[in-house]
Amino acid sequence: MKKFAVIGTGALGGFYGGLLARAGSDVHFLMRSDAEYVKKHGLRVDSKLGDFHLPHVNVYTNVNDMPKCDCILLALKSTQNHALPDLLPSLVHNESVVIVLQNGLHVEQAARAVVGPGHVAGGCCFLCSNKIGPGHIRHLDYGKILMGPYRGLDDTESGPAMEQLAWIQLEMVAAGIDCQTTESLPLARWRKLMWNIPFNGLSVILNSSTDRIMKFPDSRALAESIIREVRQTACDCGHAIELEFVQRIMDNTDEMVPYDSSMRLDFLAGRPIEVESIYGNALRAAERANVQSPIMRVMYQQLKFMAEHRSNLQLHRNSFGFPGQPPT
Amino acid sequence: MKKFAVIGTGALGGFYGGLLARAGSDVHFLMRSDAEYVKKHGLRVDSKLGDFHLPHVNVYTNVNDMPKCDCILLALKSTQNHALPDLLPSLVHNESVVIVLQNGLHVEQAARAVVGPGHVAGGCCFLCSNKIGPGHIRHLDYGKILMGPYRGLDDTESGPAMEQLAWIQLEMVAAGIDCQTTESLPLARWRKLMWNIPFNGLSVILNSSTDRIMKFPDSRALAESIIREVRQTACDCGHAIELEFVQRIMDNTDEMVPYDSSMRLDFLAGRPIEVESIYGNALRAAERANVQSPIMRVMYQQLKFMAEHRSNLQLHRNSFGFPGQPPT
Repeated sequence: MKKFAVIGTGALGGFYGGLLARAGSDVHFLMRSDAEYVKKHGLRVDSKLGDFHLPHVNVYTNVNDMPKCDCILLALKSTQNHALPDLLPSLVHNESVVIVLQNGLHVEQAARAVVGPGHVAGGCCFLCSNKIGPGHIRHLDYGKILMGPYRGLDDTESGPAMEQLAWIQLEMVAAGIDCQTTESLPLARWRKLMWNIPFNGLSVILNSSTDRIMKFPDSRALAESIIREVRQTACDCGHAIELEFVQRIMDNTDEMVPYDSSMRLDFLAGRPIEVESIYGNALRAAERANVQSPIMRVMYQQLKFMAEHRSNLQLHRNSFGFPGQPPT
Repeated sequence: MKKFAVIGTGALGGFYGGLLARAGSDVHFLMRSDAEYVKKHGLRVDSKLGDFHLPHVNVYTNVNDMPKCDCILLALKSTQNHALPDLLPSLVHNESVVIVLQNGLHVEQAARAVVGPGHVAGGCCFLCSNKIGPGHIRHLDYGKILMGPYRGLDDTESGPAMEQLAWIQLEMVAAGIDCQTTESLPLARWRKLMWNIPFNGLSVILNSSTDRIMKFPDSRALAESIIREVRQTACDCGHAIELEFVQRIMDNTDEMVPYDSSMRLDFLAGRPIEVESIYGNALRAAERANVQSPIMRVMYQQLKFMAEHRSNLQLHRNSFGFPGQPPT
């Protein structure tokens, strides 16, 4: 029986890992603060797909106690990727695949540097979910994973074969997860950035939920300008996205319930924010393609300043970009 | 003897008006909250040019009590320009000149609409000064006024002749004010915008004094990008500014003491901020010249949102732009 590891059992890892465990998959959860609670009380998921409670789950606080796994679901924030050299090596065998379920672009670089190019795929998650207590996840909406092999900065290097992802997809679908595969992971990443880049950043810079941003004419126009710029950047980087997708993002965001982006929640809670994986890596991709993305650059610079100077002054590590220079 | 009116006796009007009165000019001050205090205790100016106290000044709370004046120094914030139809008409005669000492671009439009094109000039003030109590001004640094006829949106309409400004300049210089005249008021305005646009806006958006903005690499790079964009916009609008001026602004700002911009002070105090006169009017000028100014536009949109949604939720009037459409 195939083994899954879930690294980071929060809103995302707890939800997908919980669904797999409920369906009978062999799932091993790495936890920190919630470990003792979940050992005693189990994992609880409130979901529009149906609430459930798993009284007994495999909980670990140390990767060295975990078995080698066939699929490792990486569900930490990308700002924690500096820890991967301590987390991944003992979990992988020759056929293991690490699925990087993080926001941003080229977030797979960190895992790839640790376990090698043949073992790393990416998963774009379209999920609204929160952790509302120890071992307690609330799934609000959506849930799709679009999964594909990761093939480096220009999508031409070696990566896992699509066939290596087939059994993972099957097991996820059997667990009730809307999991699809794609040969073009970068395209999926850029399509997701068309929401993340405008709304994560503006929600921090303007200290606002998405509905207020959409309601006020100037911020609404700004959001749309950013969406257009991200699309143009993606197209110029070789990932064609249809023009109509701009309007679809605006429409979808209009229809959302008032929503605090994950970046805003992180910022308000004094946690690191994913500036490098979302903005820095997108800008560096634009630079490699000689594309101008002036609004993305302004947002990157503003967010870097705000992360460094937020009022609680909590020190935080720089989030992990991929090795190389910061955008100039 | 020529008569001066000072409309708005704050950090700016109190300083220049006070210097004129000290030198023996006939100055008439319109005040609001400070009127009773100044009638009793006079006007006090602490200045690096020498502290002084004027025990008896001509104080008014109603323009209808004031004499017609030869020179009206308009020292209100541009966000108060909606009041000009009530303030100016009774003060002017056939030869009066209104000197608009406000921040931004085309801030003269409001006065021009009230008193007619032949009566309005602009004065670019390079002044660090605060009001620190009722009738009490602290002059920190600088103080130059660069004064010139206002000739409409494209600088080609009729305006006052330079000769009408000569006596005002003479009287100011006699009072110890570094007052110079220029035939190209728009050029002076744009040169000043090269500081105001980056630092007023960023100090509000990033909630920071200028020294922290200059110190952190990303915000410093952003400030320099904005300065370059404002210069390019000015050049493309027909007002050539030398490239070296970019570096001079960076150097001057590095050398400043930690400084809260007037816009940040206004924002923190819940007062209206001069988004339209500084950003809106500059963007509209760029649009008339078919110039792209992407960073200025982002800042305009962010500031409009922040002014509307600041936490104290104080309602405020829209600041006065010139008549016409908002930038698209």
